[in-house]
Amino acid sequence: MSYELIEVAYEEQFATITLNNPKRRNALSLKCMQELTTALREVGESSARGVILAANGPAFSAGHDFADMADGDLEFMRKLLRTCTTMMNTLQEIPQPVLARVHAIATAAGCQLVASCDLAVASTEAAFATPGGRGGWFCTTPMVALSRNVGRKRALEMLLTGDSIDAQTAADWGLVNRVVQPEQLEEESLHLLRAATRGSFFSKALGKQAFYAQMEMPQPLAYSYAMEVMAAASQIPDAQEGMRAFLEKRKPQFEERS
Amino acid sequence: MSYELIEVAYEEQFATITLNNPKRRNALSLKCMQELTTALREVGESSARGVILAANGPAFSAGHDFADMADGDLEFMRKLLRTCTTMMNTLQEIPQPVLARVHAIATAAGCQLVASCDLAVASTEAAFATPGGRGGWFCTTPMVALSRNVGRKRALEMLLTGDSIDAQTAADWGLVNRVVQPEQLEEESLHLLRAATRGSFFSKALGKQAFYAQMEMPQPLAYSYAMEVMAAASQIPDAQEGMRAFLEKRKPQFEERS
Amino acid sequence: MSYELIEVAYEEQFATITLNNPKRRNALSLKCMQELTTALREVGESSARGVILAANGPAFSAGHDFADMADGDLEFMRKLLRTCTTMMNTLQEIPQPVLARVHAIATAAGCQLVASCDLAVASTEAAFATPGGRGGWFCTTPMVALSRNVGRKRALEMLLTGDSIDAQTAADWGLVNRVVQPEQLEEESLHLLRAATRGSFFSKALGKQAFYAQMEMPQPLAYSYAMEVMAAASQIPDAQEGMRAFLEKRKPQFEERS
Repeated sequence: MSYELIEVAYEEQFATITLNNPKRRNALSLKCMQELTTALREVGESSARGVILAANGPAFSAGHDFADMADGDLEFMRKLLRTCTTMMNTLQEIPQPVLARVHAIATAAGCQLVASCDLAVASTEAAFATPGGRGGWFCTTPMVALSRNVGRKRALEMLLTGDSIDAQTAADWGLVNRVVQPEQLEEESLHLLRAATRGSFFSKALGKQAFYAQMEMPQPLAYSYAMEVMAAASQIPDAQEGMRAFLEKRKPQFEERS
Repeated sequence: MSYELIEVAYEEQFATITLNNPKRRNALSLKCMQELTTALREVGESSARGVILAANGPAFSAGHDFADMADGDLEFMRKLLRTCTTMMNTLQEIPQPVLARVHAIATAAGCQLVASCDLAVASTEAAFATPGGRGGWFCTTPMVALSRNVGRKRALEMLLTGDSIDAQTAADWGLVNRVVQPEQLEEESLHLLRAATRGSFFSKALGKQAFYAQMEMPQPLAYSYAMEVMAAASQIPDAQEGMRAFLEKRKPQFEERS
Repeated sequence: MSYELIEVAYEEQFATITLNNPKRRNALSLKCMQELTTALREVGESSARGVILAANGPAFSAGHDFADMADGDLEFMRKLLRTCTTMMNTLQEIPQPVLARVHAIATAAGCQLVASCDLAVASTEAAFATPGGRGGWFCTTPMVALSRNVGRKRALEMLLTGDSIDAQTAADWGLVNRVVQPEQLEEESLHLLRAATRGSFFSKALGKQAFYAQMEMPQPLAYSYAMEVMAAASQIPDAQEGMRAFLEKRKPQFEERS
C-alpha cells in the first residue's frame, strides 16, 4: 500500500505507523483516518508482532481537521465520526499490541488515539487535552475513550476546562504507562513493546481481543465469556507447548505467525 | 423561590447553593433534599453558567438526618431515598457544571453529594467518610456514587471501615480534583469553575449530559450514541462559529443563554 | 471439615484460611480450589465476623497447576475454570469481609485471588503478575478481576508483558489497600480487618453483597436496586438500634450472629 498522510515501516518484528502531516499538526482528516484504518488492517494481517503508533512534527495529533468540517452537513459529520470510530475500534481489534509513542501534544481525537491504544509511552514534552467544549464542539466521541482510561472527575475536568495535562499527570491518572525524557522515548517504547510481545503471539492475540470484550460486560457475563475463551485457548498448540515446556523445565518453542 | 435550609445566590455568572443548617451539620433531611432539588432545577433553568455547591458551619454535610428516620417505616424510607436519589441525579442532569466546594467533613449522603458533582475542590480541612455500615445502616445509595469515583478496594475500605479519608487521599483517589489551603478554597473553586465554563455554554451542556449517559453504556453502544450526539452537535450555531473562528484566526462569539 | 491443601483456623472472631502447599507454591489445583470453596462456605455460615486469606511458603500462590492441566481436554479445562470462577465468586458472596494477607508473590489466578478479595494488605516482599500470555495461555479469567481493580492501560501492561509489579505499585494502582514491612503484615491485616468488621455484622453483610451487585449495573439501575436494598435495610433491628443509639447519644448494641 502507499499512503500520503502516514508512513508504515516494518523493522525488528514491529510495524511502525507514523502520522506524517506535520504542517497540519497531523490533523485527523477523513483521508488520514481512512489511511490509518487501512494501515492498521494491513499491519493486523502481517507477521508483525507489535505496532507502534507515532507521529512527526511539533504535535502528535491535533484531532479533527476543522478545514474538513466547517461547512459539513449532518450527513458528512456522521460519516466523519463513523470513520473515526471505525479507526479507533480497529486499534483494539487487530491482534497485535499497539503502543502509542507520544512525543508531543495530543488533542481531542488525537488524545482519543492515545486513550484507544493498548499501551502508551509519553515524552516529558507530551501533553493531553480535549478542548472541544471550549471551542464550541464538545469532544463527545473522544470522551468515550478518555472516560474509560481515567476517573470521572479527572475526565470531566479535562473535558469541561479543555486545559491540557502534562505527561506525568497522564501517567499518574493511568492514561499512559510511562513518562521518559524525549531522548529515551524511542528506546523505552521499544523496550515496553518487546516485553508486551515476547512469548506466544497467538495467546496474546486471543487475550488482547478478549480484554476489550469482557471489559464492557457485567462481571457475571464477563466470567462466563472468559471461561469459554480461556478453556478453548488451552487447546491451541502454544498453550500445550507452554505448559509442557514449563513442566519439562525447558524453553518453549511457540509458533510463529506465517 | 425562598428556602429555609439552603441559600441560593447568583454572582459573576455563577449560582452558589449553600447548605445552611449548621446546627444540624447540614443533615440531608427530606425538606433539605427537596429544597436542593428545587434549587438545582431553578438554577438549571437560569442563565448561570456554572454552579457551586457549598456549605456553612463545622461540617459540609453529615448525610441523612437520623431524627428524620428513626421511626420511619419502609414506605417512608423508600420515599426518603427516592427523594435523595432524585436530588443526586439532578446534579448530573442540569446543563451547568456543578462544583462541590468542600470546606469540612462530608459524611454518608454528604460524601455522595461530592461524588455526584461534576467537579470538586476540597480544603485541607475536609474529610470524607461513609460510616453507615459501622452504625447499623450501610451507605448503600452513597456507595453507588462513591464506587463510580474511586477504585473497588478503596471504596470497600471506606464503606466497610467507616473511617474517614483526608482531602489529599481523596484527591489521590480521584474523588476530588484539587486540595488547597482553607484560605484558598473560594478562589481556587472559582478559578476551576471559570475554566470549566468558559467558551460555549451550549456545547458544554450537551457534553456534560452525554458524559453521564455514555459512561454507563458498554463501549460499542457508547460510541453509537456519542457519534450521533457529536454529529448533531456540529450543527448548532456555536459549533459552526467555533470552527469558522478557528479557521479565520479570530476569537469566537458564542451565543449566550437567554 | 478437614482439608489437605489449606488450613482453616478461628481466632478472635475471625477465620483465617491459609493456603498450605508450599512445595507447589500454593498452586490452585482442582482439589485446592474445591477445598477453598468449601472452606469459604463453611466460614460464610460461621459466626466469624471477618476472613483472612493467607498462605504459607515462598509464594502466596502461583495460580493454576500446570501439572493438573498439561494433558487436559476441553471438557476438563472448562471444569477447572468453572471451579476456579465459583471459588472467586464465593469470596464476594459470603457475608463477611475477606482480606487477602499477601506476604509474597501472587501470580496468575493467585493474583486474581487478591483482586477478588474485598480488601488486601501486602508485604513489601509481595509482588503481582499475570504472565499467562507470555507462557502460551493468556490469563483470561484472572483478567476479569484484575481489570476491575486497576486501570485499562495498567491491566494491559501486566497482562501483555507478564512482568510483575511490586507491592507499592499495586497500592498506587488500587490492587491492594496497604503495603507494610513483612514483620508488620499480620498486625496491620488484623488492624484493617477489625476496622472493617466493627459495628453491625448484618448491616455490613447486606452492604458487601450489594456492593458487587450494584457495581456491575448501569447507574440508573444501580440506584433503583440500592434504594430498595437500603430502604429494606433500614427496617432490620441493627439499623433501628443504630439510629436510636445515635439520637440517644449512647453506644449501640448490635445483634450477634448466632
